[in-house]
Amino acid sequence: MTQRTPADLPSTPVDLRSDTVTHPTAAMYERMRTAPIGDDGLDGDPTVRELESYVAASLGKEAGLFVPSCTMANLLAVLAQTQRSEQVVLESTAHMYTSERGAATFTGLFYQGVSGTAGAMDLNRLEEALQTGGHKLKTSLVAMETSHNNAGGAVLPLDHMQAVHGMAQAAGVPVHLDGARLFNAAVALGVTAADITRHADTVSLCLSKGLSAPVGAVLAGSRPMVAKARTLRRMLGGTQRQSGIVAAAGLEGVQHMGERLAEDHVRARRLSDGLNRLAPALSATVPQTNIVQVETADTGMTNAEWVSALQAQGVLTRPWGRTRLRCVTHRHIGDDDIDTAVKAFAAVLNGR
Amino acid sequence: MTQRTPADLPSTPVDLRSDTVTHPTAAMYERMRTAPIGDDGLDGDPTVRELESYVAASLGKEAGLFVPSCTMANLLAVLAQTQRSEQVVLESTAHMYTSERGAATFTGLFYQGVSGTAGAMDLNRLEEALQTGGHKLKTSLVAMETSHNNAGGAVLPLDHMQAVHGMAQAAGVPVHLDGARLFNAAVALGVTAADITRHADTVSLCLSKGLSAPVGAVLAGSRPMVAKARTLRRMLGGTQRQSGIVAAAGLEGVQHMGERLAEDHVRARRLSDGLNRLAPALSATVPQTNIVQVETADTGMTNAEWVSALQAQGVLTRPWGRTRLRCVTHRHIGDDDIDTAVKAFAAVLNGR
Amino acid sequence: MTQRTPADLPSTPVDLRSDTVTHPTAAMYERMRTAPIGDDGLDGDPTVRELESYVAASLGKEAGLFVPSCTMANLLAVLAQTQRSEQVVLESTAHMYTSERGAATFTGLFYQGVSGTAGAMDLNRLEEALQTGGHKLKTSLVAMETSHNNAGGAVLPLDHMQAVHGMAQAAGVPVHLDGARLFNAAVALGVTAADITRHADTVSLCLSKGLSAPVGAVLAGSRPMVAKARTLRRMLGGTQRQSGIVAAAGLEGVQHMGERLAEDHVRARRLSDGLNRLAPALSATVPQTNIVQVETADTGMTNAEWVSALQAQGVLTRPWGRTRLRCVTHRHIGDDDIDTAVKAFAAVLNGR
Amino acid sequence: MTQRTPADLPSTPVDLRSDTVTHPTAAMYERMRTAPIGDDGLDGDPTVRELESYVAASLGKEAGLFVPSCTMANLLAVLAQTQRSEQVVLESTAHMYTSERGAATFTGLFYQGVSGTAGAMDLNRLEEALQTGGHKLKTSLVAMETSHNNAGGAVLPLDHMQAVHGMAQAAGVPVHLDGARLFNAAVALGVTAADITRHADTVSLCLSKGLSAPVGAVLAGSRPMVAKARTLRRMLGGTQRQSGIVAAAGLEGVQHMGERLAEDHVRARRLSDGLNRLAPALSATVPQTNIVQVETADTGMTNAEWVSALQAQGVLTRPWGRTRLRCVTHRHIGDDDIDTAVKAFAAVLNGR
Repeated sequence: MTQRTPADLPSTPVDLRSDTVTHPTAAMYERMRTAPIGDDGLDGDPTVRELESYVAASLGKEAGLFVPSCTMANLLAVLAQTQRSEQVVLESTAHMYTSERGAATFTGLFYQGVSGTAGAMDLNRLEEALQTGGHKLKTSLVAMETSHNNAGGAVLPLDHMQAVHGMAQAAGVPVHLDGARLFNAAVALGVTAADITRHADTVSLCLSKGLSAPVGAVLAGSRPMVAKARTLRRMLGGTQRQSGIVAAAGLEGVQHMGERLAEDHVRARRLSDGLNRLAPALSATVPQTNIVQVETADTGMTNAEWVSALQAQGVLTRPWGRTRLRCVTHRHIGDDDIDTAVKAFAAVLNGR
Repeated sequence: MTQRTPADLPSTPVDLRSDTVTHPTAAMYERMRTAPIGDDGLDGDPTVRELESYVAASLGKEAGLFVPSCTMANLLAVLAQTQRSEQVVLESTAHMYTSERGAATFTGLFYQGVSGTAGAMDLNRLEEALQTGGHKLKTSLVAMETSHNNAGGAVLPLDHMQAVHGMAQAAGVPVHLDGARLFNAAVALGVTAADITRHADTVSLCLSKGLSAPVGAVLAGSRPMVAKARTLRRMLGGTQRQSGIVAAAGLEGVQHMGERLAEDHVRARRLSDGLNRLAPALSATVPQTNIVQVETADTGMTNAEWVSALQAQGVLTRPWGRTRLRCVTHRHIGDDDIDTAVKAFAAVLNGR
Repeated sequence: MTQRTPADLPSTPVDLRSDTVTHPTAAMYERMRTAPIGDDGLDGDPTVRELESYVAASLGKEAGLFVPSCTMANLLAVLAQTQRSEQVVLESTAHMYTSERGAATFTGLFYQGVSGTAGAMDLNRLEEALQTGGHKLKTSLVAMETSHNNAGGAVLPLDHMQAVHGMAQAAGVPVHLDGARLFNAAVALGVTAADITRHADTVSLCLSKGLSAPVGAVLAGSRPMVAKARTLRRMLGGTQRQSGIVAAAGLEGVQHMGERLAEDHVRARRLSDGLNRLAPALSATVPQTNIVQVETADTGMTNAEWVSALQAQGVLTRPWGRTRLRCVTHRHIGDDDIDTAVKAFAAVLNGR
Repeated sequence: MTQRTPADLPSTPVDLRSDTVTHPTAAMYERMRTAPIGDDGLDGDPTVRELESYVAASLGKEAGLFVPSCTMANLLAVLAQTQRSEQVVLESTAHMYTSERGAATFTGLFYQGVSGTAGAMDLNRLEEALQTGGHKLKTSLVAMETSHNNAGGAVLPLDHMQAVHGMAQAAGVPVHLDGARLFNAAVALGVTAADITRHADTVSLCLSKGLSAPVGAVLAGSRPMVAKARTLRRMLGGTQRQSGIVAAAGLEGVQHMGERLAEDHVRARRLSDGLNRLAPALSATVPQTNIVQVETADTGMTNAEWVSALQAQGVLTRPWGRTRLRCVTHRHIGDDDIDTAVKAFAAVLNGR
């Protein structure tokens, strides 16, 4: 397993709640300490600029913008590419639809969810949503998400993304990619991030999940889109000053923490396999990336009871919907932690 | 002058553009390196919590919320205390009116500016704005700012603040205080920050100006207001993860960097005095805090030309309106820097 | 069939596009000519007041508000009962969701569609949407629609409405009823309108469909809600002056045109029966009220082609989705018009 | 005085509250009774179309849109020509700023008032507001109003309008004209309405003030703008059905009621002269059109007391600000009504 330095070790429990719990690496701390900085609200911060350029280049885009969170990156992508009283179309379990609807309320847009499979929109429904004429609201943005959180970390097939992008382009509509876990998708597909992001006009990339930076995300796209988003970032209160300090950790993350995500995927599979051996009481999704959803409906316990019982065993998870738990692997989770987790599930089952 | 460590020294020019250019102190870097951290988007970050509690206590409020910027703190204060289609009343040169109007466009509120003197609203106009009945839009928030940026760093008299608060309370309307430079006001008045903030229901405090933290601000107020603002912060994309790292620098700022602002005020006065010796071509405001506005209308040069000419002399300033420059002192500006600046102004005048 | 006076006869074609094409009756014209009027933007218009009181009493509500359209009535119901950044829950084919999403973009709310059957929400999904806690957006309004346009004029069962209202009340959430065709539902159920509207807190009633008034709708509910809506109506530009002239026609409609809707329902059934004799090429929904949807997918013609071909036969219909036509009966459609329509469908089928 | 038919006679008191209290003429009632109608929400209403074309041609614009009120016409002009998070610039006592700020809250725009004289913006302030660059919010619309309600019915000089239009055009910004009392301005200047509206890109024209139609307004401008506004009208709930009935009265108003406004202006002057003979206790503005503002500050009575006292004398007026009353002449006010009003003011003064 990944060797832990003291700074790396967050806490005793096996924390499977999210990959957002990851702490910065020692290298990140060092880069934060030594990064050249400026005022990103005035003429700019050199480390922020370096991060923006690096990410833009990595994703095959012209420009990037450092923002406080992936939620803000997604919100800016929407605001910068739409006018009020239009609509955004996205798969109806996408994080931007289910969990960022609060952000949506500031846009003056209608968010139209379309049904999908494993996070991939039904293309017939997308085609309908792209139709114009009559009194239909104009669709001004289509959004995808990969890997797809609510679909258990599913990775969108590249040909699906290409199809969506092609349909949107034919309709003159830009495509945004919510890349909260973009590098997980790239690792799972064995391609570069740019191989994925070529099927989108704008991309958000979260630095604070598996990549382990403490805060922040980058929005990438064309120069004019990023210029608009930069103005909008100031309006929303997302412009910061000597933010190169935290951008430095983000740089370390995108430069050195992507490849190791493969380990997390292997361990997620190890977790899934272990839990599925507890069938039929429990069933776990077979992960493409670092997320496992565990169905508890047949155990006679609510998922709130499951969360408590597992916590008593030293394992932290999150309820997901009404009958599921979500487990996420990350760099603080080793093989032994997986085994501890499987044992905890078994103990809870036995102790019912 | 303040002793400079390498980390403290931002750049060779005398940078009077803003106190936002201040770099973290060595003590801040050390606290960032060692701060206990958590996930502020899940069950919380201990250093963030410490900062929030500390600031709330310092300002005499029940609770605090760490946010990416003072603009977001002000925006959240507005959103948390109003409903759509109501209005916010504020002095018509307040920063929230002149420079944060972009934020205002996300609120569904009407921003009603009322005229004032030295940043203090005309109380008769305020009374009119607080009147209800007929088809008047309901005023749901009154906002003040101290020290007042556009009024040249003017400090609102406490009796004015008390009067405004009293009138608003009588009308059942809460008062927000934009405390972007609150500690400068406290130092200038020789009172504690809490002596000022008792005349407001909510307060924003910027950590990234004279206090020298790299990023962030705190919004303080009642527990229910902060709970609402916390939810709204997530919506706007202001919720971050291991943000204790930067909150640590903020803690250092509020705990140890407030008193030294008096030095900045002395140096601003030294600058003002020096420039007023160049009268009548130039005239400078007599500062209460760390901001000096310099009138250039009678010099035959535009303020854009002034900015360039001073920059060529190694002195950075900002144009302010059509005929003024703004100069701000901060911990990287020593007495000799002031003297350099005055000489630069004189040289430009002579070289016309 | 209904006897036609010259004023009643709109045009030669059999116009099944909508019941909104109905012209005022002679009695309406007479009432418009003689109605006492005032200024509804100042101290009020007596005929408007009479209409508002009459409708409120008919629907068992405290107060009513005359508005330019049912879309505005629905929009005001939403605005008056919600705060920004909350959500409205409604069945995902409701008119307010599919066709009034433009209005939704002015509310700062998230519109959450939940799946349903024949216009009735799945109660499990409603229960989920009403849950609070965590970072869930607060549901602040639930909306129903009866009869339900997109569900082919289906009428919500009263026990379903009672269940929805009960669940919403338990969660402290008000219920709005989109009553664009409320009287059609009442006639179909053989109950009074008030028997239906007791299961909602606010109701919109369209005067300009089967009731045949030229323009307008009424929003009914509690006095405080109507007072709020009255202020909001002014904001949206829905306040008019001597509007008693058109309110007079609305009064005639609600007082004397409700019962005759039964005729339209009989004729819709006659149309459905006639079209279903053309099976299997065509299939028509069996109407509860005055709307028939005709499935054309198996005819080898697009529905746009169908609309054109029927128009050439003197019959006007509207495309509905991708493969359906919608036919609506109303007071200008007699038995012979139904027979003309059925023959036209048959002729088009034969002429393929 | 204007001969009164029974239908014309609204009430016994001398009603100077507003020209919105005017009742339709007998000719209007006749046109309402006989107007050809259709469904303006489907393929259109012939009388609405005729009104839209007639007004557009009269104002020298490509197209027109019939809407429920002038407030909605102004709101649609704003929505159709701006994107969210931009700003509208208008004179700070304009009706759109002081009384339609509720509408503004639905636009996601910042309304920037600039100071002016007699309703005419200070051109230096306008120039500042049109400047771009830095973090300034983009100005996307400039609005004027003539005659200007809050400026006592003042008429903007044509050279001022031309200057504003020229400055806006140079900045690429369209100009909207709030023509709530446009025909009063034309009559006062002795020019056609089109001579005025050539200095604006879009114009609203109220039918329900001096022109005496019961309801409605027209928004005129380019074909693309009107097409956008037509879609937005539906969103806001401003689309109606057989609205040709009321459009017919509007047609009569714009075709035959414009020239007689000169009488109202003469009578407003008669009122002003009569009241100024009561100086120094009272002073009245000298009207250019049909509005007189009466200063009551030196009478020792509040303006609420004045309104009551005058009402007891059979004269209705409205409070305007804190110390003024507004009196508006219209076709129900004859010379003897003016004399009655002057006597009433005198009686109140004597009875203090």
